[in-house]
Order: sequence, then structure tokens, then C-alpha cells
Amino acid sequence: MSSLYTPQQRRAERFEFGLWTVGNVGRDPFGEASREGMPPWRRVEELGALGASAVALHDNDLIPMNATQAERDDILGQFTTSLRKQDMVVGMASCNLFYHRVFRDGAFTASDPKVRAFALQKTMKAIDLGAELGAKVFVFWGGREGAEVDAARDPAQGFEHYRKAINFLCKYVKDQGYPMTFAIEPKPNEPRSDIYLPTIGACLAFITTLDHPEMVEINGETAHTKMAGLNHYHEMKMAFWMNKCNVHQDLNGQKPLRYDQDFKFGSDDPFGSFFHVKMNVDHEYTGWLNFDAHAHRTTSDMGVYRDFAAGNMDNYLMMKEKVAQFDEDRSIQDLYAEINAGDVKLQALMDAYSAAAVGKLRELPLDPEKLADRELKIEALENQVLQLLLGKRD
Amino acid sequence: MSSLYTPQQRRAERFEFGLWTVGNVGRDPFGEASREGMPPWRRVEELGALGASAVALHDNDLIPMNATQAERDDILGQFTTSLRKQDMVVGMASCNLFYHRVFRDGAFTASDPKVRAFALQKTMKAIDLGAELGAKVFVFWGGREGAEVDAARDPAQGFEHYRKAINFLCKYVKDQGYPMTFAIEPKPNEPRSDIYLPTIGACLAFITTLDHPEMVEINGETAHTKMAGLNHYHEMKMAFWMNKCNVHQDLNGQKPLRYDQDFKFGSDDPFGSFFHVKMNVDHEYTGWLNFDAHAHRTTSDMGVYRDFAAGNMDNYLMMKEKVAQFDEDRSIQDLYAEINAGDVKLQALMDAYSAAAVGKLRELPLDPEKLADRELKIEALENQVLQLLLGKRD
Amino acid sequence: MSSLYTPQQRRAERFEFGLWTVGNVGRDPFGEASREGMPPWRRVEELGALGASAVALHDNDLIPMNATQAERDDILGQFTTSLRKQDMVVGMASCNLFYHRVFRDGAFTASDPKVRAFALQKTMKAIDLGAELGAKVFVFWGGREGAEVDAARDPAQGFEHYRKAINFLCKYVKDQGYPMTFAIEPKPNEPRSDIYLPTIGACLAFITTLDHPEMVEINGETAHTKMAGLNHYHEMKMAFWMNKCNVHQDLNGQKPLRYDQDFKFGSDDPFGSFFHVKMNVDHEYTGWLNFDAHAHRTTSDMGVYRDFAAGNMDNYLMMKEKVAQFDEDRSIQDLYAEINAGDVKLQALMDAYSAAAVGKLRELPLDPEKLADRELKIEALENQVLQLLLGKRD
Amino acid sequence: MSSLYTPQQRRAERFEFGLWTVGNVGRDPFGEASREGMPPWRRVEELGALGASAVALHDNDLIPMNATQAERDDILGQFTTSLRKQDMVVGMASCNLFYHRVFRDGAFTASDPKVRAFALQKTMKAIDLGAELGAKVFVFWGGREGAEVDAARDPAQGFEHYRKAINFLCKYVKDQGYPMTFAIEPKPNEPRSDIYLPTIGACLAFITTLDHPEMVEINGETAHTKMAGLNHYHEMKMAFWMNKCNVHQDLNGQKPLRYDQDFKFGSDDPFGSFFHVKMNVDHEYTGWLNFDAHAHRTTSDMGVYRDFAAGNMDNYLMMKEKVAQFDEDRSIQDLYAEINAGDVKLQALMDAYSAAAVGKLRELPLDPEKLADRELKIEALENQVLQLLLGKRD
Repeated sequence: MSSLYTPQQRRAERFEFGLWTVGNVGRDPFGEASREGMPPWRRVEELGALGASAVALHDNDLIPMNATQAERDDILGQFTTSLRKQDMVVGMASCNLFYHRVFRDGAFTASDPKVRAFALQKTMKAIDLGAELGAKVFVFWGGREGAEVDAARDPAQGFEHYRKAINFLCKYVKDQGYPMTFAIEPKPNEPRSDIYLPTIGACLAFITTLDHPEMVEINGETAHTKMAGLNHYHEMKMAFWMNKCNVHQDLNGQKPLRYDQDFKFGSDDPFGSFFHVKMNVDHEYTGWLNFDAHAHRTTSDMGVYRDFAAGNMDNYLMMKEKVAQFDEDRSIQDLYAEINAGDVKLQALMDAYSAAAVGKLRELPLDPEKLADRELKIEALENQVLQLLLGKRD
Repeated sequence: MSSLYTPQQRRAERFEFGLWTVGNVGRDPFGEASREGMPPWRRVEELGALGASAVALHDNDLIPMNATQAERDDILGQFTTSLRKQDMVVGMASCNLFYHRVFRDGAFTASDPKVRAFALQKTMKAIDLGAELGAKVFVFWGGREGAEVDAARDPAQGFEHYRKAINFLCKYVKDQGYPMTFAIEPKPNEPRSDIYLPTIGACLAFITTLDHPEMVEINGETAHTKMAGLNHYHEMKMAFWMNKCNVHQDLNGQKPLRYDQDFKFGSDDPFGSFFHVKMNVDHEYTGWLNFDAHAHRTTSDMGVYRDFAAGNMDNYLMMKEKVAQFDEDRSIQDLYAEINAGDVKLQALMDAYSAAAVGKLRELPLDPEKLADRELKIEALENQVLQLLLGKRD
Repeated sequence: MSSLYTPQQRRAERFEFGLWTVGNVGRDPFGEASREGMPPWRRVEELGALGASAVALHDNDLIPMNATQAERDDILGQFTTSLRKQDMVVGMASCNLFYHRVFRDGAFTASDPKVRAFALQKTMKAIDLGAELGAKVFVFWGGREGAEVDAARDPAQGFEHYRKAINFLCKYVKDQGYPMTFAIEPKPNEPRSDIYLPTIGACLAFITTLDHPEMVEINGETAHTKMAGLNHYHEMKMAFWMNKCNVHQDLNGQKPLRYDQDFKFGSDDPFGSFFHVKMNVDHEYTGWLNFDAHAHRTTSDMGVYRDFAAGNMDNYLMMKEKVAQFDEDRSIQDLYAEINAGDVKLQALMDAYSAAAVGKLRELPLDPEKLADRELKIEALENQVLQLLLGKRD
Repeated sequence: MSSLYTPQQRRAERFEFGLWTVGNVGRDPFGEASREGMPPWRRVEELGALGASAVALHDNDLIPMNATQAERDDILGQFTTSLRKQDMVVGMASCNLFYHRVFRDGAFTASDPKVRAFALQKTMKAIDLGAELGAKVFVFWGGREGAEVDAARDPAQGFEHYRKAINFLCKYVKDQGYPMTFAIEPKPNEPRSDIYLPTIGACLAFITTLDHPEMVEINGETAHTKMAGLNHYHEMKMAFWMNKCNVHQDLNGQKPLRYDQDFKFGSDDPFGSFFHVKMNVDHEYTGWLNFDAHAHRTTSDMGVYRDFAAGNMDNYLMMKEKVAQFDEDRSIQDLYAEINAGDVKLQALMDAYSAAAVGKLRELPLDPEKLADRELKIEALENQVLQLLLGKRD
């Protein structure tokens, strides 16, 4: 059971774990905790030993909601000591706006204006904490922003409240001079029956309505896209294409269209994880790779690190090797090039509109029957990529 | 079996039918046509008699792809005569970029630049035809823009080609002086395994990347949203909220997360159709209401009009009555008001960011426990809306 | 906000609530309890006052897993006193084989034989408790019987262990002379990634492998069927058709293919609830109608009864009125009869196989073209049923 | 692009292709044929050259519905000549009860008794044809047996008609002395909104209601299970466990909960295909392995064989190699054994019920806390199986 990769090899990537992920004790809607867990500082030490570079946290993952100042100082002291010892950082901070019952009908979008105000208060404090800990990314996952009963709130009202809250907080961050980027995380449902901003597409659109869109990006999560049955590679590509995926992404696993499973990255869908890693390589992504997953309930406290945390990182690294092979596989590259062969002159005609271009385009003798006769060897390429994935082209 | 509403009552709405909808002869992946169908001009006459206001069409719904000029003139003559006779218009035009095998790997996003050029050619002609017929809306449904094999094309390449095509065509329309708005229609899959721009959110984001976003809106379709398991009311609300749903929408029915069913509007999901109509009423929507559905294969040629087409319109009108009742139901209105009670002063604090506002917000004595104790009568409201829907509050 | 029906009217039905349903305090995977809840005996009193006839329970809903004998006696005393006071009964009992971490990899199907033995021990005690309380139905919901990792256990091993456990317990019940019927409840996933016996069909098949199939029925649940995207009316009909739905059924609501929502019966899908009630009426079902749902997290402790519990019952009763209307609607009945017109002689030929029947069948001059020309007014019937549902045919 | 396996290696397996699979010309609900296709005899020759052992067919795949006797003889002659030449057989036959519009509301379950009679007529002829061609398996896929409108037919009526039809045909086959096994193929939806017998579980239950259950098995299909979001390995395991999967199975690929995609086996879900092949190996399955898939619309006529048909077989063979590795991997085997360690004495106690066994079981000192402390290395096993799949444990 020796590991495939060393801590040093893992350390070369920007691997991050949420405190809540290795901290998950296996509680679920139908069952109690199945393991004990460890205090935050211990999680840092275990992760550091394995080769992770960073942790992420919600305010209350570290500091309980009603901790005294002394308790706060104590926890922070231990935590930052462990971080320094492991040469790790806090990559991302967030605010828990979902656990307390005050958020049972939303936080930024709650119909009750006092709840919205409380959500702002709490978030400003969480931003301050994040800044204090050096986090350069602040994530918004609006798990309670949604509805079960469409009669009870106009969703447009919800969007508007959401927009105002993010606008307010952007200005707060600028005002404080924090070097912080926001990242919005979509999810279609659970814990609400329908969550606002259900997809990466919706978040990308939402960002364009903000006062400071340049401060706000996407935090896409594999499982959340699959919960809508969509193709995560396509969704994330759109974020990359709109230059909104530079700082943070959540990696995990999920069977499509089920409850939120947050499986270990790579454990369920080799094609999906291969293209995910390929996308990061192709776009030279340098943001955090946050494994937002949790171990199975059958996994022990030590297994959480030895098998689960290490497994996430190694599954990523195995796929990265496959991506390098893909780029060097002559036959695969030839097929890809053949399928995607361009035509510079024709492209130029389509790129820059002019009346003249219209005229030329109209005159082009393009016979659909003849065009359709061209063979497209996509099926052959598909076969070879599977062989590569299975280690049959080494 | 007498109808609930008269043609005159239906005529008061902007009801539109695609030629392909009443023209659907029941062919499906596993079966042949189950009825004969009627020529386009007959469809117009039947729809006019029932009270529809407009038809919509793809170029090839009316003019076969290789019709001669004479055949074209002939068909157009008959068709426009019937329209005039029925006092109907062409509300929307579109271009069929999916049927011919030349589009088997995409049209605007095909990897083959010649296919992309052919798609532009064909679409310019379809736009000209639409303009000639007086259509003020031109819809883009990119049914073939997508993939089965993610290895074969970089989706970002696809998005970029898509963007260039729409940019080109926007300029074409402006150049020709056509009074035409574009509307993009999302769909998550079928006939491709994954279609680009799968959701309304993705389309709204895409529009912001265009050179002329002001010319482009959303054409949301009930079934397509449900094929991704999302809440169509929420999705459409976002389009309304971003002012991108003014000219056209597709109404139909669909069981979530199945093959594209295109059922009769209102036939499957009373809550969904109620909130859809309520949204249109609340936003004073004045664009086309296009029933993009088709009759069951068991329905006869006459049933297509008598039961299917009339049914779509009447289901809409029944829901419109329910919406009026909702607005007048004292108890429902009181519950809604109680749940959504605002706080002008507090709202003002959150609306306009300032350092002072931050200070005041921070100081507000908001106790989450106390806020959480407030009763929210959402469940009671839910009960009453069901009673209203079932006709038990008349 | 006065109720549609009186407690007396509700009492005429066999309405049952699980202690865990009205006892649900709104805890979910992402949030704490949102209300306080009431002790079991109080739940009984509240339910009785509303007109419910019975409660259902898991052993640990009533008696905590490590209660002393004295605590047990105390709780039972209060509980049975309240039942008597309200003239209510315990309709169904069950055993909690999912909450404790010992069941994290299954109970009857756990790979560890000691866990399987413990599950049998615990279930025998729960059966004894059920018998003591007069429950005539004992339900098996195998929430933990399943897997996340298919490599870790052969599912056939799981089925075999499951079969042996039910066989053992059937014999135990017979041996004790308890007048008790078992009912197996399917679910496709959650809390396990894949649960064994995921559908009503799978349970019906499983029952036929048992030593005492005559003692075992189905406990179908709306939400669980919809979590597999199936038609609950069809699934339940199969159970009725195989005479395996006589004693118990779970009614609730659910958006298809999402996390387990357990919404109020009737609150989400009027067509689904109409056909559910119609099926019960048509089959003269006299078993328990168990509302296995929970109130929204936004609902208060009093709202749980006033709006949620009453709502379940009233939604059922509203649908029952619609079913009566359906049976009396001349036009609907005529359409149904026309569509389903039989042919006694022809049927007889198909019912009893003989060489002679084969000969006659072969000779029958059946022209598919002519048969296909017959009009089927299914679309018209569909319209009228919607009108009926919406109260437009009163 | 040379192949991984030789025709001889493929020939060692019982690989079968439906005539309709390689014969698929790429027609879909939104598009015309994208390739020409080949006559049946040519398909046989191409498949034979690649190493397939058998073909499967519906009556009308070979003989058009209104062929003359002369045409029939002609087609049969060419076809059987090619089979002999290639040393291939017809593994399975079926009857097309879905294409003609006469079946628009069902075949065996149509409300119209004349349609049911016609379905029996047609099926008897198809059985005769299958017998003539030597097919030992006859498959029933009830694609049109279902509904869009639940008001129009009682599903129990549908089940009853279905049962009678299969009973009739079982007796017919016995009477004719054909050495033929029936296999029923489930599907949840498409082309009907809801199809009766939607899952393997439902079919297994249905079979137990028949007069000759010993003649009837399951024909499970990967895509059909995934269209209900279920785990195909679990579903098929239940069929094996009930001894109902000995003669035929359909292998392909499918993204869960979408339109029927029928992708190439192994092309989409490496874990799924690995466990499928492992199951066949473990159960020493000797029935037909029917690739019920079709090539992408982008694939040419030659690509259908070179890339698609060969790909199906090679993907199976690659997985078979992995299964052998799994069985020989010491660490994987040790982990599996540790997780599944039995206890003969304890098992014996649970296997044979007796009052004494109950007594002993009751007395067993089983402490759930202690049992729950045992480590289960399922997560470690999961990691190693992924490594094996990716070729990292060679």
C-alpha cells in the first residue's frame, strides 16, 4: 500500500484542502458521526506531512460562532503555528451562511431584511479573518439562497438582494485594501430544493451585473455541475474562456443527479478527471486546486489522510501524467490535427465583418453534400484516448 | 368536448405556433410518422381559426433546402395569402442548422471551417427570408453545437466560433437595416451528448461577450430547462431580471431529465405553468408566446388542432385566470406580505456602500437566535396556492 | 386560514404519521435543527386532535438506543396513554438500522458477520416492541444496505445476506405468533451511493425468493420512486397487480432525481397525487396511508401540525374529491370507454392458448394500416383531466 | 491505428452485433441519415472479418414488413450464405413491435384488442423466422408498451395484457418444439414517456407471474439502466443472483438520465465496464455479448466497422485483462479478504432459523461501539482499483 507519489511531488502542485473536508466526521442525514475527527491544527499537520500546500476554511470551521475573544486567540495561535511549521498557507476563506437556523430561508437573499443585514455583518467579519490569515480568495457558496416554495419569494427579488450584497462586500474589500478576489460557487439544489445561481453559466452571467465584475470569479465544483447532469469540462471551459477561473476550483467526484456526494477526486469518472486536469494544464491554471470532498463513512480517522487525502492528490497526479502522454502520442495528435484542420483565409473572412466579406461568403461554392462526405475520425480518436487512459498505449 | 375559450379570447394573447409543431407527424427515433400532416398554408388556416396570432418557422419548414426559385415563390405565395386571410404574422424565423448531415459535428462550431462558412451562408439567407416575411425575432437553437467525444474539440474553441458567428450575423442584420432581435435558445443535450450553451444562465453569460449584446436576448424553453433538472421559473426570472426576455419564449411540457418530450404546455406540471404565466403577467411580458410542443403520436391530424393546439392556448388561459385569483386572494396576499415585509431604513443602509454604512451595520444589535425565532408561514402559503390551483378557493 | 376539512372527515381515512416525520426538527446535511420539536406523546396528542388515526415508529424514535428499563417503561407509559386518549393506534413499527455508525457499511448486508448478527438482535427486539404496541405492519427500509465502492462487496453476496435475514425474521414472527406483515421499502440511493433493492420492481422480485413470500409486501414511497425518475403510479400499480400492496404505503412529495426531499404529500405534483389517490380508490386499498414527509425548515413547531400535518391530510382529501368527480364526469368516462373498448371474442382467443387459437389468430385479417387509422382521443382526455384537476369542470 | 486484438482473439468471446446496430445510418430526431449503410449480408461479412461470432435481428431488420415471398427468399438466401461463409450464427431474434404506427399506443398492451392480436400474429411469425435461422434466444423489448397520459389506460391492465401475451407465446414456442429462451428487456422511457417494466427488477418480478417462468430470462442493457440513474452492475447482479441472466445481454454506453444514447461499450464509464466484465467472468457467463450500440453520426460507413464495431470488442477485451489482473493483485485481494472476512459459526447461527438459534443470537455479547471501531479499508481498496484501471499497477 505504498504511495504512488511522494509528498515532494505533491507539493509541486497547489493542492488545498478545506478544513471541513478532512474534518468531516461522517455525519449524514440518516446517521451520526462515524469517526472522531481532529482539531484544525492537527488537520494542518497531517495534510502538511502528505504534501498539501494550503488549507481553506469557513469562519466557523476554525472559530465557533460564539467563541470568546480568548478562545479565538487560542485557536488562531495553534492554527497559525501549525501552518508555519508545515510551510502552508490559508488559500481561501469563506463565511458559513448556512448552518445556523437564522439562515433557514436564505442569508443575502432572505426575505427578512434583518437576516440579510446579519449575513453582511457575519461576512465582513469572515473577510477580516480571511485577510488576517492571508487568504487571497474569498468564496461565496449560497447554499441557503433559494426556495422550496416558489410562491413565497420572487426569485428576481432574490437575485437583486444577492447582487447588492456582493456589491457591498466588493467595496468593503477594496476599502480595506485587502488583496482578495471573490469566487462564486454554483449549486443547483441541496440543501434548498432550488438554489439561485444553479450553474457556472448562471454565475458568469450574474457577475456581469456587478459593480466590480473584475474582482469576482467562479469557484466551480465538479459535484455541483454533475448534480445538474451537465458536463463539468464544458462548464469550466466557459469560465476559463471568459477569464473567470484563475484563482480557485473545487475538485471532487459525484454520480450525476443524486444527493451531494463529494467523493474523492478521480474516484468515479476517469474521463471527467482526465479532461479536468488537461484543461488546467492547457490553460496554465495557477490557482488553488481545492479537494472539496470527504472520505467515505467507512474510513477511519487515519484513513482520512492515508487513503482519502493522499488519494485525491495522487489521482490528480496520475491524470497529469496521462495528459503529458496525450500531448506526446503521435497518433492521437495526428487525429486531432486532422479533425481540427483550419483554413486561415476562410477564417479571416468570417472573423472581420464587412459588406465585402458578406459578398465573398455568399459566393463561396460550398456544397453541403460534398462537405458532408469528408470523413471525421472522431470515433478512432475516442478509442485511442480510452486506451491511453487504461495504460494500453505506454 | 366544447372548448373553454373562444378564438377571440385566445386572440387577445400573443399566441404563436412553430410550423414544425403542428406540422409534426409523429416520427420518433423508434417509429415512423403516425399521421399525414398538412402543408404549411393549411396549418396557418387551422391555427388562425383557433385564435392563434402568429407562426414561427425555420427556413426549411417552409422552403425545402433544394427548392427551385419557382417552387419557393409558389410556396411563399400560398403561405402569405393564408397569413393575410387569417390576419396572422410570422412572429419568429430561424435557420435549420441541424437536419442536414453536413452539420453532424456542428454548424457555427463545427471543427471544419467550410462547414462554419456554409452555416453562415445558410443563416444569412434565412435571415433574409425572415425579414421578407416580417419576422422581428430570429432564434438560434444550436442543436448540433456540441460533442459526444470531448477529446475531439476544445469547447473553448467552440464558444469562440459561436461568438464570432453571432457577431457576424448581428452586424449583417444591422447593415441590412432589419428590425430584428436575436434570441438564443439553450438546451443541455440531445441530439448531441452535450450541447454548448446548455442553460439560460450560460446563454446570458455568452451574450455579454458579444459585440452587440443589446441585439441579443434569450429564448427560454420549458422542456430544455427541465432536461437539466433545473427550475424553469428561476431560470426565466434571471433572464427577465437581466432584461433579456422581451421578445420570445417557448412554452411546452417535459418530465425532468428525459429525452426531449415537447409536451403540450400545462399538461404535465400545474405549478410550473402557473408560475410561468404569473411571471409573464408580473413582468408585463409582451413578446411572443410560442408553443414549441407537439401532439402525442396517438393524436390524429384533426386532433392536432382541436385537442393539441387549442389545448396549449386554453391551458395558458386557465392559468392566467388563476394568476388573477392569486392577486385578489386576501389570505394569500397577506401571507406573502408578512413573509416579505421590508425595512426601508435598514435596506437603505445595505443599498449604498459607505464606510459609515459599514460602521452602522457592524454595530446593529442583530441576535441570530432572536431573528431565527420569527415564524415564517411559508408552508401555510404553499397550502393555499395548491387550493387555489385546484379550484378550492373560488 | 381555516381548514378545508374537519378532524372527523380526516378520521374517516386511515391516515398515519411516522413519529419521525412530525418529530423532524429540520436538521439537514448543512444545517442545525431549526425548531425544537416535541416529545413523542405530545406528537400523538397533536396528531390526534387533527384527525390522524395512527402513528408509525422505529424502535429508537420512541426508546433511545441505550435507555434503561425504567426509562423505557416511563416513555412507553406516557406514549400509550396518549394513544388511548386520542383513540389512536400504532399502525407500523420498524427498526432503525441506519443511524448508529455500526451500520456504516450495512446492517443485514454488512460484510462483517458480527454486524449482521447485531442487526438481527436489534430487529427482533424492535419486532417485539412493535407487537407489544399492536403494530400489524413491520417495515424494512434498508437505507445502509448498499455501497459506494463496488469493489468492496459482491452485490449478490448482499442480496443473499438480505434474503437470509428476512427469512430468519419471518420465521421469528411466525414462531412468536405475531399477527404481523412485513413490508419492504425500496430506495435507489442516499444515504448510500447505491442502495440494494432500489425500486419497487426489485423488491417485488426479491420477495419471490423468500421462504415466506406470503408474509411480505411492499411499502412504496413516492419520493423514493421519483429519486429514480420513475413513474410512481406505474410502480405502485405493479405492486397492487401482484397483490403486494395491502397494508402500508408512504406518501410524500419530491422533485425527481434530487436529494431525498420528503415534501408534504400533494404539494408538488398534482397529477401524481391525483393518480395515487385514484389508484387507492380503484383498488379499495384499506391499509395505512403513512405521510412520510417533513415540514420545511422554515416551519415552526406549531406550523408542523397546523400547516404541515393537516396539509398532508387535506391534500389527500381534495384529491379524493377529484377522483369522485372523475368517475362521474360523463365526457371523461365516455372518452375512456371509447379508448379502452374491448372485444370479448377476440380476447378469449388470446386468453387461452391452444393450437386452434393459434390457427385462428394467424388467419385473422388484421391490416395494420387500417388499424392505425382509428382515432385515439387520448389528447382530448388529457385536456379534460387537467380541467378537472384545476376545478374547471365543476 | 493498428488494432489491439486480432479477429481470432475476439472470436474467442461470444460477441454479437444486432443488424440494426452496425446498420444504423445516423438518423436521429433532429437529423437525417449521416451515412449510407450496407445491406444485411454485407454487415455480416464485415463483422465476421473483425471476429464477431453472431448477429441478432428483429424480423424487419432483415425482411421488410411488406416483402413478397420471393423477396423474402432472396434476402434470406444472401444472408445465410454470408453467415455460413463467416462461420457465424444468428444468436438472437426479436420482433419489431415499435416502428409501425399501428403500435403508437402499444403492441401487447395496446388498449385496442385488434392491435394486441396483430402483435401476437407478427410475433409468432418473427419467432418462426428466428427458429428457421437457428436463434436460441428471442428478445422482447416493449418500447411502445407504456403511456404519456396516465388517464388513458390502467397500467395494471397493461401488465395483465403483457403477461397474457408472453404466456401465449411461451406456449407457442413449446408447442412448436423450438429450443428457444425468451429474454425481456427493460427500459424506463423513450419512445414512450413511461414504459412498463422500466427496470431489471420490474422484469424479474414480472417473470415470476408467468405460466412458464423457466423459459424467460432478462436481457439487461447498460444504457437502459443508466437512463433510470441506477447502478447497472447491481441490477445485473440481481438477475444473475436469480439465475435469470444466462443467455443474452446488451452492452453499450450512456450518460445517466438522458435520451437513449447507445454509445460504444466501454467508451464512457471505465468503472462500469470493468465491473460488468468482472461480473461475467465471476459468474462464468456463456450467453451472448450483444453490443447494442451505434456509431457516432460523425463516423463513416467504414468507420462503423473499423472504429466502432472493433472498438466495442476491444474495449471488452481490455477490461477482461484488467479483471485477470484484479484477481492476481495480491494487495487488492488481501484488502478484499480483510473487508469480507467471514465467521462460519456465527453464519451458521443466522442461516438456519430455530428457537435455539434465536436464543443464542439474543445472548451474543455484541457491543455496537466496539464493532464500529473496526477499520474498514474500503477507501484504500478503491484507490488501488483505480490505479489498476489506469494501468499503474502493471
